[in-house]
Amino acid sequence: MPDIQRYGEAKRYADVVVHQGTAYWVEIAETPALDARGQIAQVLSQIDATLALLKADRTRLLQVLIYLTDLDDFPALNEVWDAWVPAGSAPVRACVQAQLSAGYKVEMVITAAV
Amino acid sequence: MPDIQRYGEAKRYADVVVHQGTAYWVEIAETPALDARGQIAQVLSQIDATLALLKADRTRLLQVLIYLTDLDDFPALNEVWDAWVPAGSAPVRACVQAQLSAGYKVEMVITAAV
Amino acid sequence: MPDIQRYGEAKRYADVVVHQGTAYWVEIAETPALDARGQIAQVLSQIDATLALLKADRTRLLQVLIYLTDLDDFPALNEVWDAWVPAGSAPVRACVQAQLSAGYKVEMVITAAV
Repeated sequence: MPDIQRYGEAKRYADVVVHQGTAYWVEIAETPALDARGQIAQVLSQIDATLALLKADRTRLLQVLIYLTDLDDFPALNEVWDAWVPAGSAPVRACVQAQLSAGYKVEMVITAAV
Repeated sequence: MPDIQRYGEAKRYADVVVHQGTAYWVEIAETPALDARGQIAQVLSQIDATLALLKADRTRLLQVLIYLTDLDDFPALNEVWDAWVPAGSAPVRACVQAQLSAGYKVEMVITAAV
Repeated sequence: MPDIQRYGEAKRYADVVVHQGTAYWVEIAETPALDARGQIAQVLSQIDATLALLKADRTRLLQVLIYLTDLDDFPALNEVWDAWVPAGSAPVRACVQAQLSAGYKVEMVITAAV
């Protein structure tokens, strides 16, 4: 088995890359027409799906870097996040404001143990 | 021993996560009332405290990603940083401008070997 | 051999840090007088040079986080990137807008397996 596993087409970028038990990936909402809260919920749901693909779960998250287009969405992020994150097994988290491609309200860069 | 160690309450997020000899964490100033220079110095001091918690030191830093609210604080960052970083054993460093939660002037995302 | 290898002077920061088979580094254009497309091409060329230094190649890239000063340069990024990235072995990629030091149009934070 090669020491790097890639998931997805990996033409412009891979959906997920795994190396030595650490997985790296990036999520933006599949439905950018959703509002910020909807996009945040969808991105977390997409993280769940990726974790399932990797035969892992939320307790395996190591680090989540979050870019919000508008920091006014921070309270919504926290509400949706708090209902999702496994208390006691939460990852490290950073959140800053950055502009994203048109329509996107949130982008997350994830590192997980698999 | 579990293969992931988490420090802090880990309710919304962990203070530090360690996996396979690599530690991940995020620092913002404990005293956001400080000016930019003060916050930068405080964050570096907090990194020292976290490294001590991990029984490591500054020479074990691998990567520091720095978000400044205002790039005009870059000279202050460099001054405080240069007095702090172990010359010859410095980590990789990136620094970009990004808005942070109200009052915060700097956020650092740290990776270290432990 | 120490378990952390650093390349470059490592006074303010290291050019590259390697730990347990994972390399971390940051690239900005050596010639900031270039336009965005030129800087992007130069940064990718610099990544090639760093990979060669590490006796690796583009297929060993795990993750590339890209900061663009202006998201209007996203199409240029994709054009130059698509001609450069090894299809089928692409890394994870994130791209957000962030202000950089004067003149710089792009900064990339790279993780690779070595």
